[in-house]
Amino acid sequence: MGKRTVQIKGHSYDVHIDRNVYDLFSSDYYSLITNADHVGIIADEHVASLHLALLKEALNSCGVQPVIKLVPAGEQCKTLSVYGECHSFFLKEGFTRNSILIAFGGGAVGDLTGFVAATFMRGIRFIQCPTTILSHDSAVGGKTAINMPEGKNMVGSFHQPSAVLFETALFETLPPREVRSGMTELIKHAFISDAAWSEELLSNDRFSSPSIDWLSSELLKGIQVKADIVAEDEFEYGKRKFLNFGHTFGHAVEAVCGFGGLSHGESVMIGMAYSLLLSENFSEINSSITNRFIRFSLSNGYSFAPVRSFKFEDFLQYMKKDKKASFGQLNFVLLKNFGHPFVQAVTEEECENAFYELQKRVEMEE
Amino acid sequence: MGKRTVQIKGHSYDVHIDRNVYDLFSSDYYSLITNADHVGIIADEHVASLHLALLKEALNSCGVQPVIKLVPAGEQCKTLSVYGECHSFFLKEGFTRNSILIAFGGGAVGDLTGFVAATFMRGIRFIQCPTTILSHDSAVGGKTAINMPEGKNMVGSFHQPSAVLFETALFETLPPREVRSGMTELIKHAFISDAAWSEELLSNDRFSSPSIDWLSSELLKGIQVKADIVAEDEFEYGKRKFLNFGHTFGHAVEAVCGFGGLSHGESVMIGMAYSLLLSENFSEINSSITNRFIRFSLSNGYSFAPVRSFKFEDFLQYMKKDKKASFGQLNFVLLKNFGHPFVQAVTEEECENAFYELQKRVEMEE
Repeated sequence: MGKRTVQIKGHSYDVHIDRNVYDLFSSDYYSLITNADHVGIIADEHVASLHLALLKEALNSCGVQPVIKLVPAGEQCKTLSVYGECHSFFLKEGFTRNSILIAFGGGAVGDLTGFVAATFMRGIRFIQCPTTILSHDSAVGGKTAINMPEGKNMVGSFHQPSAVLFETALFETLPPREVRSGMTELIKHAFISDAAWSEELLSNDRFSSPSIDWLSSELLKGIQVKADIVAEDEFEYGKRKFLNFGHTFGHAVEAVCGFGGLSHGESVMIGMAYSLLLSENFSEINSSITNRFIRFSLSNGYSFAPVRSFKFEDFLQYMKKDKKASFGQLNFVLLKNFGHPFVQAVTEEECENAFYELQKRVEMEE
Repeated sequence: MGKRTVQIKGHSYDVHIDRNVYDLFSSDYYSLITNADHVGIIADEHVASLHLALLKEALNSCGVQPVIKLVPAGEQCKTLSVYGECHSFFLKEGFTRNSILIAFGGGAVGDLTGFVAATFMRGIRFIQCPTTILSHDSAVGGKTAINMPEGKNMVGSFHQPSAVLFETALFETLPPREVRSGMTELIKHAFISDAAWSEELLSNDRFSSPSIDWLSSELLKGIQVKADIVAEDEFEYGKRKFLNFGHTFGHAVEAVCGFGGLSHGESVMIGMAYSLLLSENFSEINSSITNRFIRFSLSNGYSFAPVRSFKFEDFLQYMKKDKKASFGQLNFVLLKNFGHPFVQAVTEEECENAFYELQKRVEMEE
């Protein structure tokens, strides 16, 4: 339990993970929230039905009456049409450049709200109140986006929140699949930064059913990794690309299954296995490391079904649209070893071979 | 004829006004344009039918085959739906973060293209090739936007172009009304920066039928004023607000008449008369200055018809939605005197009185 500070040129903000964290509206964030002429909440309708009262009460006790815009749960809210509806809604409510938005929900609502805030009258402030474990990642770092029929997160901008408030009480009601999905980015943060920490996670028996105290301190570690990278490279010219470890193939899995099929985290888990496999061609990563990771994933309930159900070409068409692709070239974040990521151009043929190899390895470990 | 440099923290770019300015693609901008993996042009369909060949030839002679996206002429292109179409179009064409866009048309296409570029995969580069006099203003400074049913420029972001190339040969085919509309922002730049220059313009007999040489050097002066302000205050926390002189009422005029009724420049001309009138209550501006400006406007063919045809309440509802409004308070840029702008909070009552006074003054001068 505690906080981490994200430092970005000219702007810094705190990420808090705690019980009763919304009490901070009455203390640390009292002036931020009461100096705004309007406060709006964009809330995932499912999460809102369970927990919105908690957030509203905290705001009411500062004398703030927020205006609520409910949006469809999950990735369904990240469309151009919902984006336009949000703008119209807040314009009709009289919001100005001195208004503030709050994202209440998982990563999808955070991405949407961030992009609305980034572009409402050319930019207003916003606060992230993530409600899932997975969103410990997307809520930090200022990437905002919506999806297009042609691909995920294709339209968006960089816009840093004023604060990130993570209520740990909400973890208790998360279904096991959400927990599993959320742990993926934590593994990623470990893999790209720290060999010992990676080893700790891979040998943890309670990985997919963590205690809240352990989880909170682990998430803070993950946020620190991300904050350090983002502080150096806000706009992803260089090392911020490392945060995409597992995401090139992962996003393709997510897209091929249809948004809402496998979750983002579950898809990225497959993507990390794929990246480890590709790494074998270029680094010290060897088959026993990759195989151990696949075993670890399977034993924690992650599924590799899409690798069997779809053809390589299905994934390839999405990978080619990846934002890191350039001049028709596929670029992957790979590992020299745990803690040592690098970017590598990979040919279509190498990608295809790795795909068939992944099918074999999964079959072997299942 | 010449260029001005806009300096913004960490980024600087040149604005060129010249004959055969697209030849610069083969020299100054050769590496910018040939290092991009795709080049796209978003073009006003009307302007494209007249002049696109000029731009395409210049690009072809660098070995670049641009992809063209035609959009409706004028403000009709600044909708959420055209914005979405542009993104889908360039995604289907395989554009990446290493691609570049070119805006070809008036201010509307520039605003749209800038916003598409600002948000395509979270931001790619773009070049402004403005084709109207008015767009000498909007092409510089990095404000990008689309309109919402609730108001003009309500959704957008700040995104600086890589270059602005202004072909003066295109001025020759501009209809008189376009010329008139374009001169408005020039007057504004004079009024907020320089008393002697303001006097020069107000006493110029050829104001609405300028020579190209005179016009080019005047536009460069206007761009210098804007560049200096933007360099100090990119995000409009302070003195950049001065550039909105005449725009609070001007935008309301434009909205009340319906987009496409009076042009932006014609509407802002009325807005400047209104702001001078409001200034009389707070500064050294007196009725003879305001009346002279109204006379000057009328004699140069500007219309004040909307001030007679619509009620104060029609304008007020739009002014309240102005992006500079805050806590229900209307804020206007006024003049202490020519060259000395300031921001003033104005009550609804003062606004209403000024409106009826404007009706009287116009009637008097007509």
